[in-house]
Amino acid sequence: MCTAISVTAGNHYFGRNLDFEHTFGEKITITPRNYPFKFKNGTEFKNHYAIIGMALPKDDYPLYFDAVNEAGLGMAGLNFPDNAKYNKPKNGKDNIASFEFIPWVLSNCRSVDDAEELIEKVNITDEKFNEQMPPTPLHFIVSDKKRSITVEQTFGGLKIFENNVGVLTNNPTFDMQMINLANYMSVSAYEQKNNFGDINLKPYSRGMGGIGLPGDLSSMSRFVRACFTKLNSVYGEKEEEIVSQFFHILYSVYQQKGCVRFDGMYEMTNYTSCVNTDKGIYYYTTYYNHTINAVDMNKENLDLENLIIYELKNSNI
Amino acid sequence: MCTAISVTAGNHYFGRNLDFEHTFGEKITITPRNYPFKFKNGTEFKNHYAIIGMALPKDDYPLYFDAVNEAGLGMAGLNFPDNAKYNKPKNGKDNIASFEFIPWVLSNCRSVDDAEELIEKVNITDEKFNEQMPPTPLHFIVSDKKRSITVEQTFGGLKIFENNVGVLTNNPTFDMQMINLANYMSVSAYEQKNNFGDINLKPYSRGMGGIGLPGDLSSMSRFVRACFTKLNSVYGEKEEEIVSQFFHILYSVYQQKGCVRFDGMYEMTNYTSCVNTDKGIYYYTTYYNHTINAVDMNKENLDLENLIIYELKNSNI
Amino acid sequence: MCTAISVTAGNHYFGRNLDFEHTFGEKITITPRNYPFKFKNGTEFKNHYAIIGMALPKDDYPLYFDAVNEAGLGMAGLNFPDNAKYNKPKNGKDNIASFEFIPWVLSNCRSVDDAEELIEKVNITDEKFNEQMPPTPLHFIVSDKKRSITVEQTFGGLKIFENNVGVLTNNPTFDMQMINLANYMSVSAYEQKNNFGDINLKPYSRGMGGIGLPGDLSSMSRFVRACFTKLNSVYGEKEEEIVSQFFHILYSVYQQKGCVRFDGMYEMTNYTSCVNTDKGIYYYTTYYNHTINAVDMNKENLDLENLIIYELKNSNI
Amino acid sequence: MCTAISVTAGNHYFGRNLDFEHTFGEKITITPRNYPFKFKNGTEFKNHYAIIGMALPKDDYPLYFDAVNEAGLGMAGLNFPDNAKYNKPKNGKDNIASFEFIPWVLSNCRSVDDAEELIEKVNITDEKFNEQMPPTPLHFIVSDKKRSITVEQTFGGLKIFENNVGVLTNNPTFDMQMINLANYMSVSAYEQKNNFGDINLKPYSRGMGGIGLPGDLSSMSRFVRACFTKLNSVYGEKEEEIVSQFFHILYSVYQQKGCVRFDGMYEMTNYTSCVNTDKGIYYYTTYYNHTINAVDMNKENLDLENLIIYELKNSNI
Repeated sequence: MCTAISVTAGNHYFGRNLDFEHTFGEKITITPRNYPFKFKNGTEFKNHYAIIGMALPKDDYPLYFDAVNEAGLGMAGLNFPDNAKYNKPKNGKDNIASFEFIPWVLSNCRSVDDAEELIEKVNITDEKFNEQMPPTPLHFIVSDKKRSITVEQTFGGLKIFENNVGVLTNNPTFDMQMINLANYMSVSAYEQKNNFGDINLKPYSRGMGGIGLPGDLSSMSRFVRACFTKLNSVYGEKEEEIVSQFFHILYSVYQQKGCVRFDGMYEMTNYTSCVNTDKGIYYYTTYYNHTINAVDMNKENLDLENLIIYELKNSNI
Repeated sequence: MCTAISVTAGNHYFGRNLDFEHTFGEKITITPRNYPFKFKNGTEFKNHYAIIGMALPKDDYPLYFDAVNEAGLGMAGLNFPDNAKYNKPKNGKDNIASFEFIPWVLSNCRSVDDAEELIEKVNITDEKFNEQMPPTPLHFIVSDKKRSITVEQTFGGLKIFENNVGVLTNNPTFDMQMINLANYMSVSAYEQKNNFGDINLKPYSRGMGGIGLPGDLSSMSRFVRACFTKLNSVYGEKEEEIVSQFFHILYSVYQQKGCVRFDGMYEMTNYTSCVNTDKGIYYYTTYYNHTINAVDMNKENLDLENLIIYELKNSNI
Repeated sequence: MCTAISVTAGNHYFGRNLDFEHTFGEKITITPRNYPFKFKNGTEFKNHYAIIGMALPKDDYPLYFDAVNEAGLGMAGLNFPDNAKYNKPKNGKDNIASFEFIPWVLSNCRSVDDAEELIEKVNITDEKFNEQMPPTPLHFIVSDKKRSITVEQTFGGLKIFENNVGVLTNNPTFDMQMINLANYMSVSAYEQKNNFGDINLKPYSRGMGGIGLPGDLSSMSRFVRACFTKLNSVYGEKEEEIVSQFFHILYSVYQQKGCVRFDGMYEMTNYTSCVNTDKGIYYYTTYYNHTINAVDMNKENLDLENLIIYELKNSNI
Repeated sequence: MCTAISVTAGNHYFGRNLDFEHTFGEKITITPRNYPFKFKNGTEFKNHYAIIGMALPKDDYPLYFDAVNEAGLGMAGLNFPDNAKYNKPKNGKDNIASFEFIPWVLSNCRSVDDAEELIEKVNITDEKFNEQMPPTPLHFIVSDKKRSITVEQTFGGLKIFENNVGVLTNNPTFDMQMINLANYMSVSAYEQKNNFGDINLKPYSRGMGGIGLPGDLSSMSRFVRACFTKLNSVYGEKEEEIVSQFFHILYSVYQQKGCVRFDGMYEMTNYTSCVNTDKGIYYYTTYYNHTINAVDMNKENLDLENLIIYELKNSNI
């Protein structure tokens, strides 16, 4: 399904794998400051933070999967089937359709602290983008250089979790993911001590300290593996080293074509992204293009009123 | 440590991850047909198959890590510590130093069948390349379009195993790896059946059919995960799709910097290779260069007497 | 910590392992019908169902760990640290101290259906039995021949879960235990199919269908293993066969002395119980007495007003 | 299939689970010193060590599954399908049929040191006990107070392994079991350290130090679990405590009826034994008799010429 991570290594980097059985026609989409955001609740933002991210641009509207604003705040929606519960609009709340939630937050907020305050007032509604596009069940990660939060609206209501690991995948709910992570707290990047007393047990390989880590592609296992890989990562100093390491982390939970099958289809990682949120540069690879491509929002005129769109390059050799 | 795979998808593809705590100064090295191979046992080949592969070129000698010859035969040496046993020269045997073993086979053989016949006569010796370079303990995978074999010389002697999975990592011995693989025979790319009878257990994620796969970087776990990923892979039709999938398989057992630590060092994947053995094209990526680069041996003059050497490109963005 | 199970095989059987670092002086305690139960909320029951169970009899009060009433309803409290949340008394609720909860339910109810209706009105309070005995954090399983429920009062309030597996251990909350159980839904008592395609992987042992089951003594792992063992169990026809099988199920999650250590102490299974709730017979073993002993409540005068107490036999050979 | 263990805790204790889909009519069988042992190779022992063990007494011959002699040496045969290789008689060897191997060793040897010397001269032959009883593929554990060895005769010949763990199950070969055990060397009876750095991961249960232990009934998993349980066991001082703990260890790898299924049958633990080899007392339980029964060889006249046989008690309550 999906994995998102947030890494601070000098600059702040935010990105994700999008895993699905087909692509959506997603494109890198810049929403300049003066693009008019009209929300279902009647609000309109005429001047707001500029945003860069991966979106399905539809009827001139950027349906963002993940995005970052010029203030350095990142946000991504990840599949959350059977758990996400969108409501009818409620009085006294900021009623925001699920597809509007990323624009609502990134238009307004400079930081996770800002976002948290804003989101506490939100009721995510089940309004459709159009008749053909019912809402997708999602939960969200919101990250800046200092911290990350997870936002989940379920039958129990909207909850905001401190996300200390800076990782989000899919089901189950975030509190369960963290309890499950505790099951793996002894795995290590170092060789382990032999706890079998006097019995001479000799490691036969490097990497045995990580034994116990799950290797499948389910959302619980990807969560554990992404946490382990991220928290043990060594990033280097140079932008290219850090970005490379970021992609290596997400490749540890990559979905290879053929390894998740159903109904004659294959779920696979359509794209992987990494945004330097300090610099506004959106790096990405696609399943068939291993080369890291980049789009720099600051090379565009961010005062425009229209979306700026880049087609993805999906071929390397 | 290392993982090698062999894939036949239209053409035959052969390659590996080389995992180590530092690079060796390895370069893509073409040995043309008339390069004079002089062996420790006195044999000299003046005309032989041309070879392309990753090597440390030392004193004008190609110390190959993995290579492919123009007949389409591939061979790689992988770390096999505590198990590899090299001998003194023996009468009645083809005595070949461990560093000469890849040139010996690839100079002579068109196929795994050929190689098997040749290798049965071999005694791998403990002779050094030079005083500063003691032999590395290795075992070997030899592959062509039709089959693969594993070659291991241990205290029990030299053994040749049929390698039906087309995968090799490191310790323990290959027969143990295959017995261990049987422990995972029920994992699947498909959703699993609920075997808990009347209890309603609902999958909460795609990919749960693979639960049970190990996620760490030890050689036993990498063997299992590489087999699962390879055997479930869907390759497509186009060269770029197949090569991309090949790299995705090897990325499933990639060693990210920081995830295997010892003595202040990090073992990591220095390079990943994929050779189209039908076409003689050597594709590769490096840890910091995700772009798939390629060297085509058939664009060179293969009748030369000198090594042809390409430096690796280790930077992308 | 603890594991409780409920089995219907002809008659209904209910019991548990009690795992702790010391015994409490627990004894098999029968509360006859006319023993006066006085509750903290002022209610007094002078005539109620007779109860048999394991209790710490204290100041003539039966502090039950697990018990069954003469109508065939069973109930057990299991450790639930950091999750159980007991409240101050609330208006409009049946305020019941945690140590009174088993007597409250078993005095009144003939069935889980009855119990469910009663429990919905309950607020479990944090009142102490006495100054030296602060409340223990618990959650509860309530079982009869037809069904089981789990009762948990946490920060989120009092919740009643349908318990289809008839198993309860400890943390985390029951809904998480069931989601985690889904991770194991493919394990089987039968040999598994080989999903590695053409690769010949041959089982080397019987029992490999269960590979993936966790073998440690944590509460999540005991939950999974107890479910697997219980749901695959074959019970036979005779009382002695069924009771034997019941103990074998609980032995699959037994805590052997030395295998769970902390602060110089060992957590171990102090006793294992199995009550035939149709017949009112309480079978048990202790850590050092493997012989199945039995106490039959129907051999006592159940119209008395005083507790009837049996010391445990803790020695066999 | 089966699990055998050897424990020294003051006295020496040796025993096993016998797991099979039916019982064999096994009985506790004492072979007194003057029972005439006639071997297929023509040797006859008229005066030898007295032996007590579990056997199928057939045509007045004790077909031992496991046994102990009066000198304190124990030996058990465990299923070893596809690996055991029995030969035709060979010149220059002590040719011993597989069913004679336990009597051959226990009649002659006082210790494992003795046994090792004797066994080095043995060739285990494929001779049948009778036409209806082809040889069973077995490997063996031989134990005294000081050490244990494993004896395996495969295609590679007869091998004697030092068995430091004092545990034997079934396939694969013993060297592979020990390599596999190294995969679990970090599991612990103690709570583990959190290796996820600054992330606050809190254990939710005792026993989490053992996470990673396998919970299924295959021979590799039983080997690991039995080693962990045995090596962490606390035995106490009294005979009844030590014997109880010994049974608890073997119950950690017990096969419950229904959990291993094939062809309409159930493999289950038919009996569990524990012999105090210093005292010559054979303790046992059966699947349906949890009470520890005992037979003391020293209460019999060990100078007889005839087998002394005790029927098993298979019922408790």
